[in-house]
Amino acid sequence: METIDSWPTTPFPEDEYRKRIGRLQRRAARAKVDALFVETPVNRLYLTGFRASNGVLLLEPGRDPCFYTDFRYLEMARKQLSFVKVAKLGKLPAQFGGAARRRRWRSVGYEGALTAGRLKAWREAVPSVETWKDIQGQVAELRSVKSALEQEVMRRAAHAGDRVFRYAVAEVSLGRTEWDARRIIRSWADRLAQGEGFSTIVCAGANASRCHHSPGLSMVRPGQGMLVDMGVLVQDYLSDMTRVVFYGRPSKKLAEIYKIVLAANRRAIRAVCAGKRCDQIDAVGRRVIEKAGYGKYFGHGLGHGIGLEVHEAPRFAKDNKTVLKPGMILTVEPGIYLPGVGGVRIEDMVLVRRNGCDVLTGTPKELTCL
Amino acid sequence: METIDSWPTTPFPEDEYRKRIGRLQRRAARAKVDALFVETPVNRLYLTGFRASNGVLLLEPGRDPCFYTDFRYLEMARKQLSFVKVAKLGKLPAQFGGAARRRRWRSVGYEGALTAGRLKAWREAVPSVETWKDIQGQVAELRSVKSALEQEVMRRAAHAGDRVFRYAVAEVSLGRTEWDARRIIRSWADRLAQGEGFSTIVCAGANASRCHHSPGLSMVRPGQGMLVDMGVLVQDYLSDMTRVVFYGRPSKKLAEIYKIVLAANRRAIRAVCAGKRCDQIDAVGRRVIEKAGYGKYFGHGLGHGIGLEVHEAPRFAKDNKTVLKPGMILTVEPGIYLPGVGGVRIEDMVLVRRNGCDVLTGTPKELTCL
Repeated sequence: METIDSWPTTPFPEDEYRKRIGRLQRRAARAKVDALFVETPVNRLYLTGFRASNGVLLLEPGRDPCFYTDFRYLEMARKQLSFVKVAKLGKLPAQFGGAARRRRWRSVGYEGALTAGRLKAWREAVPSVETWKDIQGQVAELRSVKSALEQEVMRRAAHAGDRVFRYAVAEVSLGRTEWDARRIIRSWADRLAQGEGFSTIVCAGANASRCHHSPGLSMVRPGQGMLVDMGVLVQDYLSDMTRVVFYGRPSKKLAEIYKIVLAANRRAIRAVCAGKRCDQIDAVGRRVIEKAGYGKYFGHGLGHGIGLEVHEAPRFAKDNKTVLKPGMILTVEPGIYLPGVGGVRIEDMVLVRRNGCDVLTGTPKELTCL
Repeated sequence: METIDSWPTTPFPEDEYRKRIGRLQRRAARAKVDALFVETPVNRLYLTGFRASNGVLLLEPGRDPCFYTDFRYLEMARKQLSFVKVAKLGKLPAQFGGAARRRRWRSVGYEGALTAGRLKAWREAVPSVETWKDIQGQVAELRSVKSALEQEVMRRAAHAGDRVFRYAVAEVSLGRTEWDARRIIRSWADRLAQGEGFSTIVCAGANASRCHHSPGLSMVRPGQGMLVDMGVLVQDYLSDMTRVVFYGRPSKKLAEIYKIVLAANRRAIRAVCAGKRCDQIDAVGRRVIEKAGYGKYFGHGLGHGIGLEVHEAPRFAKDNKTVLKPGMILTVEPGIYLPGVGGVRIEDMVLVRRNGCDVLTGTPKELTCL
């Protein structure tokens, strides 16, 4: 067996977080907010590298950033976070109401991904604030461009995903159920990476027409395809890949749609480069499928950003005008789904570069018959 | 090896969901809302048994419930959901704005767990609505009392958790890292259940004073304890248990706090029965620790409801006045955390009954030296 890369998660060097926080602070200043609260676990993790189910990162122009967390995480936070002040998180209202008055917060930034109930509690806690600005999009924009360290980790994640897929496919023989396949994939993901990145999708035969089918007791039979949409975790970052393997020769219909989807995948990937808009890339992939007469069997977007979350900004979609920047990482995943027959989706991860892109996924995508 | 209970998730019989939806509809009628949207994945799952990353369940008094979902899940939803109408989810605003006007929705119920951004989109989509009522608490209340089918599944989850723990501990010898232990636990959870229920906490030695420590490269050494807080998934329901095992004889201090925490756990469990308030149970456990002089080293609540989520209503906490009802399932988990020394937490799941409670966790909790 190859090296086992199942290492524990360690945060990046603190300089990485300083930079991230600095960038957000500059955006906050431009947006003219007096204070900015970051509370969702994923954004807190992005900005501090600290994993906790509860905490608030408070950014104020001209003040040191401060991370508040509760009893359970306090000792850990003090040890790990040298680049922010750490303080105890008490009852939300009482704690921040005073600061809001003393420091005359007029405009406060919050994350739109916060729960509605939580935002209500905030509004009631600091009633002196006049304007609440949703800064979710600004954090998402920061997160969409991956740093050199992030790119390196995501390359490793994609590579680990390839290996998990290879080992797992070798183990999934005819007559195995979708559920077996999922279990086998998870088990390899635990050994070759830091576990499954999201619930692995496995679709046997005609089930592949339901593109987000949950693995059940359907068996893989001769002449059928098995669609696997999987990702692994490496240091909190995700990979994402979809492949269809066939057990014996596929029907003419399946072979035909496979060829079309593969062409759409390749054409779209060739089109990716910094400066292009997301909707343009979507159109390139979509056109291949539409021209072949299967447009109505491709109902989703062409791809999505990926990083700490499996779906991040931006998206390759008809209405997404985001301009690609070097360092963005997205999936390219055209598909054709024929109810009652089956489906094909071929998904790779790409890293946007100044002239083109790097394909991070290494698993071959030619039609494979086992 | 014992039987492998790793079966795919299948929803309960449709009657279970009809009942759940009916109960929520009656509450909606009492709360005088004209329409009620259920959008969070976990509440949708609770009410329909259908797993999807996108969908809206619309309940209106006097109308059939309708489940809206997008292209990716439509075929599956039509097949699986016989007890609700199924319709295609388009662009949110356009789709529901018309209905809101035609059917004169004045008051609409939403979930407080919805994101703030999403609620804002809803408000803009159906501007004719005058009042938005947060009905999160009402769904949480329904979910807090487990049906006979849920109790059965959660018993199986607790039992599977016991077995995973037993097999895993047998494999984690001296010199293994926390990360190794976690990987071993996850691997057994994949074989004996439907996987890990939440990120398993493993703390070697003094790390146990940080009660939500992330597993790292610390090794388990002679005379030290290993704290494991773990749960598994069975049919979407979770188990949750914490144990500390010692490698060789623990120090006097650790043995002392172990004894106190165990007494607190047992005393609190004996106090649980329908009709008591949650804060009363919290007080019973807390008093044992306070009397022994360790009150300030027990900073969290005594326990929490559990079900489809690891933390659900109600909570055993100082300020929680919820009256226990038969069928509620909660954890009881007192702990003492001594920075630099270590920590002990002993956590069981209990099912509230008319006279007392059933302890669902079967793993022994006497001090164990390996």
